[in-house]
Amino acid sequence: MDKLLYGAAYYDEYMPYERLDKDIELMKKAGINLVRIAESTWSTHEPQDGVFDFTSVDRVLDAMYAAGIHVIVGTPTYAIPAWLAAAHPEILAVTSKGAGKYGARQNMDITSSAYLFYAERIIRQLISHVCRHPAVIGYQIDNETKHYGTLGPNVQQMFVKYMRAKFPSLDDLNQKMGLAYWSNRINSWEEFPSTEGTINASLAGEFSTFQRKLVTDFLAWQASIVNEYKQDGQFVTHNFDFDWRGYSFGIQSDVDHFAASKVVDIAGCDIYHPSQEALTGAEIAMGGDIIRSLKKDNYLVLETQAQAFAAWTPFPGQLRLQAFSHLASGADCVEYWHYHSIHNSFETYWKGLLSHDFEPGPTYEEACTIGKDFARLSDHLIHLRKSNKAALLVSNESLTALKNFAYCMSIDYNAVMRQMYDALYKMNIECDFIGPDAENLTNYQVIVVPPLYAASDVLLNRLNRFAEQGGHVVYGIRSGFSDENVKVRVTHQPGIIGNACGTYYDRFVSAEHVTIKSGTLDLTGAKSGLSSIVELLEPKGSQILASYEHPYWGQYAAITQKDSGTGSATYIGCCPDESVYAKVFEQVCKKAGLWGVEQTLAFPMIVRSGTNQSGRKVHYIFNYSMEKTTQQNPYGHAQELLSGREVQSGESLVFGPWDLVILEEK
Amino acid sequence: MDKLLYGAAYYDEYMPYERLDKDIELMKKAGINLVRIAESTWSTHEPQDGVFDFTSVDRVLDAMYAAGIHVIVGTPTYAIPAWLAAAHPEILAVTSKGAGKYGARQNMDITSSAYLFYAERIIRQLISHVCRHPAVIGYQIDNETKHYGTLGPNVQQMFVKYMRAKFPSLDDLNQKMGLAYWSNRINSWEEFPSTEGTINASLAGEFSTFQRKLVTDFLAWQASIVNEYKQDGQFVTHNFDFDWRGYSFGIQSDVDHFAASKVVDIAGCDIYHPSQEALTGAEIAMGGDIIRSLKKDNYLVLETQAQAFAAWTPFPGQLRLQAFSHLASGADCVEYWHYHSIHNSFETYWKGLLSHDFEPGPTYEEACTIGKDFARLSDHLIHLRKSNKAALLVSNESLTALKNFAYCMSIDYNAVMRQMYDALYKMNIECDFIGPDAENLTNYQVIVVPPLYAASDVLLNRLNRFAEQGGHVVYGIRSGFSDENVKVRVTHQPGIIGNACGTYYDRFVSAEHVTIKSGTLDLTGAKSGLSSIVELLEPKGSQILASYEHPYWGQYAAITQKDSGTGSATYIGCCPDESVYAKVFEQVCKKAGLWGVEQTLAFPMIVRSGTNQSGRKVHYIFNYSMEKTTQQNPYGHAQELLSGREVQSGESLVFGPWDLVILEEK
Amino acid sequence: MDKLLYGAAYYDEYMPYERLDKDIELMKKAGINLVRIAESTWSTHEPQDGVFDFTSVDRVLDAMYAAGIHVIVGTPTYAIPAWLAAAHPEILAVTSKGAGKYGARQNMDITSSAYLFYAERIIRQLISHVCRHPAVIGYQIDNETKHYGTLGPNVQQMFVKYMRAKFPSLDDLNQKMGLAYWSNRINSWEEFPSTEGTINASLAGEFSTFQRKLVTDFLAWQASIVNEYKQDGQFVTHNFDFDWRGYSFGIQSDVDHFAASKVVDIAGCDIYHPSQEALTGAEIAMGGDIIRSLKKDNYLVLETQAQAFAAWTPFPGQLRLQAFSHLASGADCVEYWHYHSIHNSFETYWKGLLSHDFEPGPTYEEACTIGKDFARLSDHLIHLRKSNKAALLVSNESLTALKNFAYCMSIDYNAVMRQMYDALYKMNIECDFIGPDAENLTNYQVIVVPPLYAASDVLLNRLNRFAEQGGHVVYGIRSGFSDENVKVRVTHQPGIIGNACGTYYDRFVSAEHVTIKSGTLDLTGAKSGLSSIVELLEPKGSQILASYEHPYWGQYAAITQKDSGTGSATYIGCCPDESVYAKVFEQVCKKAGLWGVEQTLAFPMIVRSGTNQSGRKVHYIFNYSMEKTTQQNPYGHAQELLSGREVQSGESLVFGPWDLVILEEK
Repeated sequence: MDKLLYGAAYYDEYMPYERLDKDIELMKKAGINLVRIAESTWSTHEPQDGVFDFTSVDRVLDAMYAAGIHVIVGTPTYAIPAWLAAAHPEILAVTSKGAGKYGARQNMDITSSAYLFYAERIIRQLISHVCRHPAVIGYQIDNETKHYGTLGPNVQQMFVKYMRAKFPSLDDLNQKMGLAYWSNRINSWEEFPSTEGTINASLAGEFSTFQRKLVTDFLAWQASIVNEYKQDGQFVTHNFDFDWRGYSFGIQSDVDHFAASKVVDIAGCDIYHPSQEALTGAEIAMGGDIIRSLKKDNYLVLETQAQAFAAWTPFPGQLRLQAFSHLASGADCVEYWHYHSIHNSFETYWKGLLSHDFEPGPTYEEACTIGKDFARLSDHLIHLRKSNKAALLVSNESLTALKNFAYCMSIDYNAVMRQMYDALYKMNIECDFIGPDAENLTNYQVIVVPPLYAASDVLLNRLNRFAEQGGHVVYGIRSGFSDENVKVRVTHQPGIIGNACGTYYDRFVSAEHVTIKSGTLDLTGAKSGLSSIVELLEPKGSQILASYEHPYWGQYAAITQKDSGTGSATYIGCCPDESVYAKVFEQVCKKAGLWGVEQTLAFPMIVRSGTNQSGRKVHYIFNYSMEKTTQQNPYGHAQELLSGREVQSGESLVFGPWDLVILEEK
Repeated sequence: MDKLLYGAAYYDEYMPYERLDKDIELMKKAGINLVRIAESTWSTHEPQDGVFDFTSVDRVLDAMYAAGIHVIVGTPTYAIPAWLAAAHPEILAVTSKGAGKYGARQNMDITSSAYLFYAERIIRQLISHVCRHPAVIGYQIDNETKHYGTLGPNVQQMFVKYMRAKFPSLDDLNQKMGLAYWSNRINSWEEFPSTEGTINASLAGEFSTFQRKLVTDFLAWQASIVNEYKQDGQFVTHNFDFDWRGYSFGIQSDVDHFAASKVVDIAGCDIYHPSQEALTGAEIAMGGDIIRSLKKDNYLVLETQAQAFAAWTPFPGQLRLQAFSHLASGADCVEYWHYHSIHNSFETYWKGLLSHDFEPGPTYEEACTIGKDFARLSDHLIHLRKSNKAALLVSNESLTALKNFAYCMSIDYNAVMRQMYDALYKMNIECDFIGPDAENLTNYQVIVVPPLYAASDVLLNRLNRFAEQGGHVVYGIRSGFSDENVKVRVTHQPGIIGNACGTYYDRFVSAEHVTIKSGTLDLTGAKSGLSSIVELLEPKGSQILASYEHPYWGQYAAITQKDSGTGSATYIGCCPDESVYAKVFEQVCKKAGLWGVEQTLAFPMIVRSGTNQSGRKVHYIFNYSMEKTTQQNPYGHAQELLSGREVQSGESLVFGPWDLVILEEK
Repeated sequence: MDKLLYGAAYYDEYMPYERLDKDIELMKKAGINLVRIAESTWSTHEPQDGVFDFTSVDRVLDAMYAAGIHVIVGTPTYAIPAWLAAAHPEILAVTSKGAGKYGARQNMDITSSAYLFYAERIIRQLISHVCRHPAVIGYQIDNETKHYGTLGPNVQQMFVKYMRAKFPSLDDLNQKMGLAYWSNRINSWEEFPSTEGTINASLAGEFSTFQRKLVTDFLAWQASIVNEYKQDGQFVTHNFDFDWRGYSFGIQSDVDHFAASKVVDIAGCDIYHPSQEALTGAEIAMGGDIIRSLKKDNYLVLETQAQAFAAWTPFPGQLRLQAFSHLASGADCVEYWHYHSIHNSFETYWKGLLSHDFEPGPTYEEACTIGKDFARLSDHLIHLRKSNKAALLVSNESLTALKNFAYCMSIDYNAVMRQMYDALYKMNIECDFIGPDAENLTNYQVIVVPPLYAASDVLLNRLNRFAEQGGHVVYGIRSGFSDENVKVRVTHQPGIIGNACGTYYDRFVSAEHVTIKSGTLDLTGAKSGLSSIVELLEPKGSQILASYEHPYWGQYAAITQKDSGTGSATYIGCCPDESVYAKVFEQVCKKAGLWGVEQTLAFPMIVRSGTNQSGRKVHYIFNYSMEKTTQQNPYGHAQELLSGREVQSGESLVFGPWDLVILEEK
């Protein structure tokens, strides 16, 4: 791709009447140069078992090509036809809620051989049919793939084989997972019980890991099929999604994004976020930072909101602010879900660029300005490169483990991760995301570690080494507590990282009635409330950054920090407010030399930077606010790309509500 | 019937000891001239398959006849015997919660042939046994019949046949319901999936319509059987009920009352309502207005509360106020559920006229005064005729559709309907209820339309014509949005009614942070809060009655009104407080000439009027309050029927707490 | 047993590495002289069907014996091995949630013959193996046994036989249970429906009684097996637990403690309670009072919290306060659950004496002081005898019945019981618990009766006689309302006890808008709020202790009291605050002569007394507070056992936070 892509999902199949020419006319006017098609219309393309009909695909491809609009073709496998469910009801996944029912998408057992057989056939039929069409620039394999909770007998059988390979000795398994407890020992493989009812967090955690592997394997299988047909210049991508809490909230617990993305040529994702008064840009930045980190490369936003829900219909300026925010994180493509609003079924209220009347409205009109600017500025904005010095180390194993203990300890992994991420985002510290297997930690100055509850000795030792070698690491609560099998370490906590952090504890108590107070770190202005539990830290050669306010626990530290050479390790033994994380990160980033001109601005003024293909520094400055504001250019002499005017260092930049400037340094 | 009926449900079968003579003595003293029997005691009347025992029915009929008390005999089909469930477990309805369990009433599949066989036999046995008994004045077929969520394979099969008849072409069906979405196309009838799992609101809506038809068909079947035995002077009725939210709240989503009531001779219903401090009379009025509208005739209140739950035990005066309120809506019968309190099982705390001790208590004593007055004033009060000039047009299809979109748009149809109805009720505008198929709209001056989300072109065009021809129509939010298949209209909203209302919009946004403010309508005193969504209305030749307060949406209208000749169409594009509806209705009713002497009073003073069989105007004035009050007679010279005294126009009327007067104009 | 036992549950099987010698060293240092083993490790002891391995048991027994530590061996039947579930899936209980799944403990059908076969075999194997080992002082049969909601077809069949034996006549059953209602009559035993779906509170109540009987029978069966092996000097006990609301809250609805405890030699229980700021000692006292009452003898606390959950980790002094509080209620044993914290599975966050690091920490250190004092003072503190003059009469039948009516009347039996118990506890009135079958009511001066909703004529008449003969009885709301079959009495309420209480009512209404006000009892300082319902009491020869504040119900009494000779009967017709119960109990206890020196102190100063084996009065005085305080010795000349110093009557006693003294009268 040599230009920014601006697009929308397009469903000719859903149209209430013939619209194609009119739609293309409106797309062209809006600067749309990409559509995604076919990913949810299997029942149209294969109306009966073995009967194929790609009429709608062909006419859209031809018309788009004629109009100079590129097409990503999706494999239509995430929603099965009624005839397939009728013929093979076993395709519907058995989950903890019982057997699935036909109707919704993403209700299938992705390991079902019947499903795999029919999915492979439709993929081969469709992709072989379209692959030589000049409109096609790439393929999206499936959509937002997850394991959908599949756990029926066939899945259980695969799991037992997986366990047998991973833990050849049952005695070893029983020991590592503590299965003697409550008489759960498995003394022969034949008697391995379904994990559905398990109360063993280690076994449950391993099953979650296995379920994530099913997704990795499934996507690899789809990619291998599509790759057989892929032509030169075409790519394979996938639409990864995030922990969904009504919007894209955090890391996706059902998929190992790092592993699953290996098979795609370009990473893609959907990002949905609060809007109107609640628009902050944090989800756009977070989603982008995660997906960019997967392949350490630019990525595609394959879906994001146009008008969407009533609470998301953008205020004037917001659609524009959002689009450039995606680019500022490294996206080379912004694609709306979806072009037109749907008149029936489930997502009727998830509106596209056009309302149900298909008439250009304010959102469409704003899109036209975006499309024009994307085209005009493509060479300056495409392929933005980042070299972030901070990273968040995230762990699905830890997320799962904490979820399994939620009944007695309420620590929401993604919520804490978001407090940490958002604190960095709001102080304009850009960061990457890395997984437990990440190499080259030394690329970073600062590694922030949300509650790393379950981690191998290897990982913890690598983090220790990172700090020893001059890096700065900041751990959230519970980090280091258990090993990769969710077995609590039989040592002083926080175990392997204790020495590096200069802290130990053996007790943790309720956070009720406890608050946090300044130690050597001044917490003035931060909120002192704590939630869930507090660990009673005792410093060992470390500074006490903060301690507790409480009649009995007041003698214990809440946050400790130990320097080792030029590096440091900070341990946060509680669940404080985001403002406390901000105080800690400010102190650490200053230590690490990451405190620069970007930090003269702060949310709602958001700065995101990179280097463009001409090797020039590009800085996006966003006003995530309904208030007008004037700021001085914190950078050197630059060209403001949207207006084209030259801006001197320190010169005033005027921002309207939800406004932005893009500075390309000279 | 030539006299007011005053009665109670009576269960000789539940009695802890022989009570019949004593009970009849107490009934006589209370003026009770009606009992309903047998509707839930199948297992007593048919203790074993094919063994019939009507002993308790016979002795009650004989004793009642001797005492001059009429009897309505219920068909005992809404609660099946244990032996029947044991022999035919398939009778228990399969619902979305799985297979039913024996125990509760109304747990059967009303389409089960086993059920229909046994139900028909007990009906024929019972009704043939009693039909010539002189105590019997009528029959209640079944009780509060609904479809109970039945959706098992047999029901599905019937549904597919129904769909095939309604939509002969599958392509047409796929198009109208938008089944291409998420690969839901049905490409052959054999593969029609169960609607249980459907996420398609059009299909789900049609299934609900089908389920309501099951009720209509079932009642027609029962009526046809009973009609074979019905003697001259006897009637068939049914006890319709309402949307149950701990009391009778709104229209019944599981039954098409208009269609189902066609087969009965007299419409009947049960009405339960908050009491004590929370008694307003609104449910009595609403329930009565609905049921009276079904056959445009007087009706029977077959059940209403005596003492009932702890929160409903009436304050002194309330039982009396309630009883006359039923008459004031057009009831010819007020029957309590139930005579005595039950000593076991489920409804032990739903107390009857008598407490568990069977001793006369305050509620019974108050009933005695009612019975006496009913008897004394029967000729003046029976057969009250209404000629209301206002109507609410209600739509089960719209209710269902909005419920199916509740996950993304929280508009509670019945709650909005109640806000509209209650606003009218409190300003003493009496109204009828009409359904989507209502003819003769021109009988009315004002038609109020709660959110008419799903409606055919025909209906909307008729409403347009109504306004053109001088009528006044007021639409709630979302009216006209989708067609009768819950397919959103592909036009500017509100579609077909847009021109008449002089408004259009293509966007609707969250109501958070938005309030309503006066336009040409003065909203002083009304609450400005809004809930759910707001539609961004743009006027086209209409007045802006109200607009929004919001930084961005402030430029849009919230309520528009367009006059056409002497008629008008008002569109409310938001979910305001009841007080805003009241402001709109006051303005519209004044336009329509419906603002009269009744409107000199307002809640808690409630006026309900009609014409009695002597052709005289009768006005009930109720004090729905714990406070004493004095009001002037707003009518001409009249006789106050309870006291018998003459009252001049403008003369003071003194009301105690929960008091009433009945004025018969001279 | 001739010495206080101080112990912990010990699971050699769960150890992450070889710990036994080190653990015993730490135990000895802490004064631990008892461990409980083997009760949840069946899968270790029988790794495959019929293969037995008691290695871990043997080595622990040998090592403990060598160290002079006693052992209680548990039968390992409350958690079944995976191989057993695989071979006999029918062992997993069918409940109202469907078929059970393997994983959790206590998921079996305790009536399953396969379960009973395998359970009997492992019991015989284990107990015969260990019974002659000199370390073994007793056996715990099963653990916290309940019926686990079992209700599958086999259980239903047993229930029908039980019903047939109890109600030989179906007509009688139908009448007593009111089965004519909603056509529920059972006209032949073959058609007896599953009670799972029943809506009949009488039938549901009887099924609950039957389910409790299953527990009684199961424990009797286990005891009979273990008794075959029990040697001289060994005992059989069981670990009874309480209504669990995150801690031990009230009486156990799933077990008839009085009946089930008949087969054990010594009663045992577990007691868990809020801690930290929320520690009051009430649960320790209540649990002890209940379990002591079962066999009217000393008892074993087989489990209680060491560090446990984050919210329970004790403040300094609390572990000690708790341990002596158990002794003060009559415990001869305090045993922690558990010795070490577990590193895997489900209860990882339920920490033992040692944290996961196995290092001595503050809680362990405090335990060492307790163990030392237990050993030192054993002869003074063991076998404490109580002769309480007050008792609470509790009824599982009433609890169940009120639960079955919760949908319409929210009276939480255990919550009311706790308000009553806690009021007594806080005013230092010690009490026993008695069941509906208790004999010798005349042992008591005061009997407090939480809502005795379901009770036989016999019981009520005995309570009447108790009051006539000089006793004082205080009834909670709804007492006497229905008979033992949950059939409401056909009389003026409160039925049989009405005359004794000098009160009657036939109505009860919502407590909303109603408060309580002083009658002849001064309620100054008590809270006036009421919840649920209020009964409208009319006095008949009784005093009105309190009445209602309400426009209409103000004329009725809320609490009445009638003296008969030196006795009295008090009836509380509402659900007031605990402070109102306290006012009533103070008045009644003064009447009854139970107001003594203990009542010069009140919560947070708690006094518990008894007579030790030397015949000396022993008084524990506890400071359940974070505040230091000084109190005068309210007793005569005594020795303070912990310090050894002599204390004169009236001499100052200084209490630190969470502190205690133990006075042994001279």
